[in-house]
Amino acid sequence: MDETARLAMLARVLGSEVRSAGVEMGIGDDAAVLRAAALGGERLVWTIDEQVEGTHFRRELASWQDIGWRSFMAAASDVAAMGARPRGALCALVLPDDVDDAALEAIARGQREAADATGAPVIGGNLARGTALSITTSVLGACASAIPRSGARAGDGLWLAGDVGLAAAGLRALETGRADDRRLTPAVEAWRRPRARIDDGLAMSAVAHAGVDVSDGLARDVGHVASASHVRIVLDEAALRRDVTLAAVAAALGADALDLALYGGEDYALVVACPVPITGFRSIGRVVTGEGLALRGADGERAVEPRGYDHFGERRDG
Amino acid sequence: MDETARLAMLARVLGSEVRSAGVEMGIGDDAAVLRAAALGGERLVWTIDEQVEGTHFRRELASWQDIGWRSFMAAASDVAAMGARPRGALCALVLPDDVDDAALEAIARGQREAADATGAPVIGGNLARGTALSITTSVLGACASAIPRSGARAGDGLWLAGDVGLAAAGLRALETGRADDRRLTPAVEAWRRPRARIDDGLAMSAVAHAGVDVSDGLARDVGHVASASHVRIVLDEAALRRDVTLAAVAAALGADALDLALYGGEDYALVVACPVPITGFRSIGRVVTGEGLALRGADGERAVEPRGYDHFGERRDG
Repeated sequence: MDETARLAMLARVLGSEVRSAGVEMGIGDDAAVLRAAALGGERLVWTIDEQVEGTHFRRELASWQDIGWRSFMAAASDVAAMGARPRGALCALVLPDDVDDAALEAIARGQREAADATGAPVIGGNLARGTALSITTSVLGACASAIPRSGARAGDGLWLAGDVGLAAAGLRALETGRADDRRLTPAVEAWRRPRARIDDGLAMSAVAHAGVDVSDGLARDVGHVASASHVRIVLDEAALRRDVTLAAVAAALGADALDLALYGGEDYALVVACPVPITGFRSIGRVVTGEGLALRGADGERAVEPRGYDHFGERRDG
Repeated sequence: MDETARLAMLARVLGSEVRSAGVEMGIGDDAAVLRAAALGGERLVWTIDEQVEGTHFRRELASWQDIGWRSFMAAASDVAAMGARPRGALCALVLPDDVDDAALEAIARGQREAADATGAPVIGGNLARGTALSITTSVLGACASAIPRSGARAGDGLWLAGDVGLAAAGLRALETGRADDRRLTPAVEAWRRPRARIDDGLAMSAVAHAGVDVSDGLARDVGHVASASHVRIVLDEAALRRDVTLAAVAAALGADALDLALYGGEDYALVVACPVPITGFRSIGRVVTGEGLALRGADGERAVEPRGYDHFGERRDG
C-alpha cells in the first residue's frame, strides 16, 4: 500500500466518522477539532505515552492487535488516574519496513478496540518511517476537577482498584515460554490486555486526595505519591498478599507474590489516598507524616525502595 | 544522569511552572490539566507530529537545539493552519544511548525556545529508551471556529503567507556541504529554524474557507485541499517565481526555483482559499470547478503532480 491507501485503511479501521461527544473533525485534516463545552467537564486532562519495540514490548510476545490495545490503554490509564473521562486520542506510529500492511491494520484494530472500550475515539495521528517500531498515544479527557499525585495527607487510607503484579508475572511467563500453562493465563492476559480503570477513576474523583496509576510498579508509583505529597506511605503486606489470583500465579511461576505486587508494572491498577472507603477499591495501606515508603508486615515496618520492575533487562524510563 | 535527574532537568529547562492561560498542572503528574474556559475559544484544535532521526533530520545537519525547535514548530504549524492559537504542548522522546544528557538538554532548550515563541508551554511528556531518536509533539490550541482543508470553493483566490522552497534548498545546501555559502544562509536558516505562522493563521481564520500548512511541499499540500474540497486549484507560475530570495538561493544552488517552490517541504508556510485578500498573504492562484492541481504559465495551463519533496532518498510519510 502507498501512503494514501494506508491512511485510508487507518481511517476506515479507526473510524473517520465523528463518534464521540464534542468531536467536530477527526482523521484527515491538519488537526482534530473538539468542542470544549461538549467534553463533559471544565478541566481538560491531557497525556502522552510512547511504547517502543524492544523496550516496552516484543512482537513475538503478543499479537499486533494486543500491541495496539496495550499502547492505547497505557495512555488512557493516565487520564483515568486523574479522575477524568477520556474523550479522544491521537496516535503516532513509526513504522520500520518489516511491519507490513497487515501488521499495521492489526495494530489499528487493537487501538480501535481499546478506543471503543474507553469511549475515546482515535481522531487523528501521524505516520512516519523509521528503523524501530513505536506507538505514541496522546489522550485528552475531561473532568470537573483533577486528582493530582501531590494531595495525599497524613490520616488518609491507601486504596487499590485492580490487580498489581499479574502483568509482570504474565510477561515473565511469556519470556520463559510458559504461556501455555493454564494457571498463568490470567497473568498473560493481564500483560497483553490491560484495561484503563476509567469507572474507578471517576468513582474516586469525588473523594480522593491523590491518585496514580500503577504503570511502573506499586513501589515506584506510590513512591511518587509519597514524595510529591511530602508524606510517608505505609503499605500493608498482608493486604498485598491477600490476592488469591496473584498467589496462585506466583506459585506456578515459582516467584514471590509480594515481590510481583511491589515491583511489577503495567497492570494499570489505580491507587489513591483517600480519607474514606470507595466502592471498588480495597485497603492496602495508609498515609502518615514523614517521608518515604514502607511495608508493615508481621515483624514490623521496613523501608521499601521505590524502584520499578526491570523488564527486558533494561530499566524502564517512562 | 539517572531518570529522576533527567526529568528534573527537563522540568527546569521546559518550565515546570504554569506559564500559560488555562494551565493548572504541568510537568510532573500522570497528565497535564488545563481549564477549558481559559483557553480563548470554544473549539479545541489538537495535533500530533513525530520527527524521526534519519527520516526527518540528521544530527550532523543541525544543532540539537535546532532539532528540538523544528520538531516543536512542525506540530505548532498544524494548529496555526486551522486558524487556532497554540496553548500547550506535550513532548515524548525516544532516546538511544548515544544521545547524552547534554544533547537532551539542548533538544529541550530548542523546544523551550519554540514554546516561548508560540506561547504554548511544554506541560508534560514522556521519556523512553530506544534504538532510534524520535521526538513526538502534541499541541493543543483553541479558536472560535476551525478552518478545514475541505472548504475551498470555486471563485476563491489562493493565498500564501511565508516562503515555500527555501527550507528544501537549505537542506540541499547542508547535504552537499554548501552551508557556508552566504547566499544560501536564508535557506539553511529556513530549514533549521522554521516558524509556525500563528498570527497569519489567526488573521485568515475570520475569512478563509480552507487552509493548510506546507509541510510536504506546495503541490502535495495544496493537492490535499483540492481533493478534500472537490475543486480544481490553479497555481500561478509567475507568482511563484516572483520570490527574489528563493530565486537567488536557487541560482546559487543551480536549482530551479519553481521546482523548489512546488515540491520543497518544511517551510510551514500557510496556504488558504479565500474570496478576499488577507493582510500578510500574497496571491498565488485560484480555485475553480473541477478537480486536481494545475500550474498556469506563459504557455498555458498544465497538470501538476501532487507529490512532495523526497529527502534523504526516502519518501516522506507524514
